[in-house]
Amino acid sequence: MLDTTATLLQRQGYHATGLNQIVAESGSPKGSMYFHFPGGKEQLAAEAIELAGRRIVDALHHHSRESALASLDSYLAWLARWLERTHFEQGCPIATVALEVGPTSALVGQACADAFDRLEGAVVEWLRADGYEEAHARDRAVLIYAAIEGALVLAKGRRSTEPLHRLRAALPQLLGDSAST
Amino acid sequence: MLDTTATLLQRQGYHATGLNQIVAESGSPKGSMYFHFPGGKEQLAAEAIELAGRRIVDALHHHSRESALASLDSYLAWLARWLERTHFEQGCPIATVALEVGPTSALVGQACADAFDRLEGAVVEWLRADGYEEAHARDRAVLIYAAIEGALVLAKGRRSTEPLHRLRAALPQLLGDSAST
Repeated sequence: MLDTTATLLQRQGYHATGLNQIVAESGSPKGSMYFHFPGGKEQLAAEAIELAGRRIVDALHHHSRESALASLDSYLAWLARWLERTHFEQGCPIATVALEVGPTSALVGQACADAFDRLEGAVVEWLRADGYEEAHARDRAVLIYAAIEGALVLAKGRRSTEPLHRLRAALPQLLGDSAST
Repeated sequence: MLDTTATLLQRQGYHATGLNQIVAESGSPKGSMYFHFPGGKEQLAAEAIELAGRRIVDALHHHSRESALASLDSYLAWLARWLERTHFEQGCPIATVALEVGPTSALVGQACADAFDRLEGAVVEWLRADGYEEAHARDRAVLIYAAIEGALVLAKGRRSTEPLHRLRAALPQLLGDSAST
């Protein structure tokens, strides 16, 4: 059920995703939804965002290479292929939900904030392994993650992976001269 | 009516915005909506996105300073103040709609793509005035605009202007050594 919710949030956002659709597409009985998610759609969305965040962290780890530059390049190349394969219908579920409802639901907003923290944490690890100092790694990771999220927004808006490839080309400069590679 | 639509898209996205709400909040008669926007919500949204894009370009121009760095810093500082003043309820209407419906509506998707082109164009102008070559200015503008959009996403998700201020701090590096300033 969380899987289905995460997929629907990714494809169409929070407002277009109804409980009936989640029940229908997940094939789970409606009663079990009320049992496991007494908080309804808000709780389902918050937990689906948490799940999505953990999965993106797994994806980031999957692209770990010998340097932060190589890892980020591998991850971005994969994101571009994935957008094309899904005809730009998928995207970052956390970003979509954060923009739609972040400020109006404390529960969902917190789930988005926690997920963003975890994603940035994965980038911080890469930078630390590259020899960045902690504070500098955190500074840079916010910027890099913002650029990734923004490139995804532009790519979806344009139905083109070009923004992701431009970001790849700019990675050496974004990572600056503090990287040891 | 377009004003109201733009504001509603910004606050809650496409799916949560209904024609009845647009009519009610704009105070316009329903008949005039069908007369001016025979394409319904899709047409209203596409034209509201176009209006929002033109307004953001005006806002960017309003922050034109002696260099691209100073202009971007001024614009980002203003965005941060605006998010705080609106309690993070506002955001980039184009990004929200692009993520929700970009790929499923050709009309709305094209409006988002055109708006992003115009916004990047304003950044290209600043970079050109700074002495960047055309191709390099375009490359860099995509990256800078992606970072701005992404910082807005993270700021809304976290209800914190920190991502925008980190981006401000990183502007000199993002702009690189090709700027003449």
